[in-house]
Amino acid sequence: MIEPMAEYVDVFQVGARNMQNFCLLHELGKAQKPVLLKRALSGKLDELLHSAEHIFASGNEQIILCERGIRTFETAYRNTLDLNAIPYLKQRTHLPVIVDPSHGTGDAQMVTPLSCAAIMAGADGVIAEVHPNPASALSDGMQSLDFKQAETLIQQIRSVLACRQSLENI
Amino acid sequence: MIEPMAEYVDVFQVGARNMQNFCLLHELGKAQKPVLLKRALSGKLDELLHSAEHIFASGNEQIILCERGIRTFETAYRNTLDLNAIPYLKQRTHLPVIVDPSHGTGDAQMVTPLSCAAIMAGADGVIAEVHPNPASALSDGMQSLDFKQAETLIQQIRSVLACRQSLENI
Amino acid sequence: MIEPMAEYVDVFQVGARNMQNFCLLHELGKAQKPVLLKRALSGKLDELLHSAEHIFASGNEQIILCERGIRTFETAYRNTLDLNAIPYLKQRTHLPVIVDPSHGTGDAQMVTPLSCAAIMAGADGVIAEVHPNPASALSDGMQSLDFKQAETLIQQIRSVLACRQSLENI
Amino acid sequence: MIEPMAEYVDVFQVGARNMQNFCLLHELGKAQKPVLLKRALSGKLDELLHSAEHIFASGNEQIILCERGIRTFETAYRNTLDLNAIPYLKQRTHLPVIVDPSHGTGDAQMVTPLSCAAIMAGADGVIAEVHPNPASALSDGMQSLDFKQAETLIQQIRSVLACRQSLENI
Repeated sequence: MIEPMAEYVDVFQVGARNMQNFCLLHELGKAQKPVLLKRALSGKLDELLHSAEHIFASGNEQIILCERGIRTFETAYRNTLDLNAIPYLKQRTHLPVIVDPSHGTGDAQMVTPLSCAAIMAGADGVIAEVHPNPASALSDGMQSLDFKQAETLIQQIRSVLACRQSLENI
Repeated sequence: MIEPMAEYVDVFQVGARNMQNFCLLHELGKAQKPVLLKRALSGKLDELLHSAEHIFASGNEQIILCERGIRTFETAYRNTLDLNAIPYLKQRTHLPVIVDPSHGTGDAQMVTPLSCAAIMAGADGVIAEVHPNPASALSDGMQSLDFKQAETLIQQIRSVLACRQSLENI
Repeated sequence: MIEPMAEYVDVFQVGARNMQNFCLLHELGKAQKPVLLKRALSGKLDELLHSAEHIFASGNEQIILCERGIRTFETAYRNTLDLNAIPYLKQRTHLPVIVDPSHGTGDAQMVTPLSCAAIMAGADGVIAEVHPNPASALSDGMQSLDFKQAETLIQQIRSVLACRQSLENI
Repeated sequence: MIEPMAEYVDVFQVGARNMQNFCLLHELGKAQKPVLLKRALSGKLDELLHSAEHIFASGNEQIILCERGIRTFETAYRNTLDLNAIPYLKQRTHLPVIVDPSHGTGDAQMVTPLSCAAIMAGADGVIAEVHPNPASALSDGMQSLDFKQAETLIQQIRSVLACRQSLENI
């Protein structure tokens, strides 16, 4: 199933609902392309690391971990983006750790502050949903940035990263 | 009960387990000192704002809101510090919002990255537990910084705040 | 505070939001009346037992534990009534354990089946909200039984209890 | 993938971690055998019903829904078996609803009281793990009944069901 796609794919993304679909993980372990592995909605971090092991054990070492919001009792946002995951995972693995604040919060207004906070907490990257006109998006418009907001965010992230690196000298 | 204490107190702190102890909130509403109101372990943000209203309605406008970690299924840390709360609260209230990463994570190694992340997300301050020798602390030693770590954190927070303010010009 | 009430009170109820209001628990420990102690919205069962110890240690052994629904990610009901608590608590304490399905679910249609299930799981009793005309109740009408439903429930609980006792002979 | 198995299979079970593996659901929708669909660890009940729709829409109407414990903050048991799900689902669907108290609690001592409670709440059945010698089981021994306990449970369930049916005349 994976092979015919590989030619056209840069990165395989395993969605949160498939974090423990072990057949899929084993197939992706045989692919020669990076795999972006998202934490399940109630996935413990140790389970996320175990799922990464399944890919690794099948032969693929190019794995990116992604925090994308967990389910809690709080209904103020769509999910609860868990930035605690970043220092926890960075202490336990050499794998890159990125964050998805669009799905993590479900609210475009929260994407920029939480992206910057994630980088400051040690994240290696951010994936954010972008749409030319979020108000008319067919799906996930509420959590999407427009092109101008995305461009600003990219510049802000560069500043935050420079700041984080400068903290090491304090 | 509150009055005899007021002379010696700078700030009254309402612990997480008393966020909805309405008798206490009304008494503090009559005090002339600031009140630091912590979110309950499963307190919804709208409930936190309602508890602040109880203090406000009794006559005290000096209220500080504090995110200190919520209860979730994740057992990797003592609580799950919820940084989503910062932009959410800042959009809905003029009250200062601070964060307690010591109780929020229960792990001294996570206090510094999450303090910096909280400031970047828009927090107005951080409270962290500090002890001259955390290893011999009678309580909460695992989550306490020593004096040198605390001093470094203060300097780092100054840098992060300067960075956050500079982002507004991007 | 407690003493002037004692003359008029049959049972003191500690609401979920005050399960860890230790000043209140100590005062109730000095009272000569039974105390109904409700589990907090995110109260672990071991914390509920510790709170009972606080009352006990102050001198009052007449304590009733009450499961009344916890906070989870599920929004289909107001709270998630946790019937696992019944066998867990009954194995660890001699105290009576009762259940509040009205607050636990927030839905009058669920009160009867969950009351019967709670008795079958080993509960010593049920407290349910009753109102002569739930549709016009000023508060909690959605979760209230009318008089006729309450009468039927009482008869059903008697049958369920008889059935539970008969199971011991199988 | 499904077809070669169908000859040897009585019921296809979709485990909790695959409740939203839509490819799998569509394949099972083409099978001529019943499908036992388990609720995900943080699966909302409306999502469980949507997953059932995916099977249904692909042509298979033989679907059994199964509550098997959700993830909450409570660590006293492995999962929190959610018996509220039973009356909720029975009001919204004609599909049979069963309960798995072995995975739901992870504790053999809780299996019997919660099985009886589930039947009393309206469940159409129970699946429980059974092992000739749970203490030496290679997996899930802590939550398994031995043969004698299982036989007793079956008899108890018959009594509980008779009791539940008799309640309809009260």
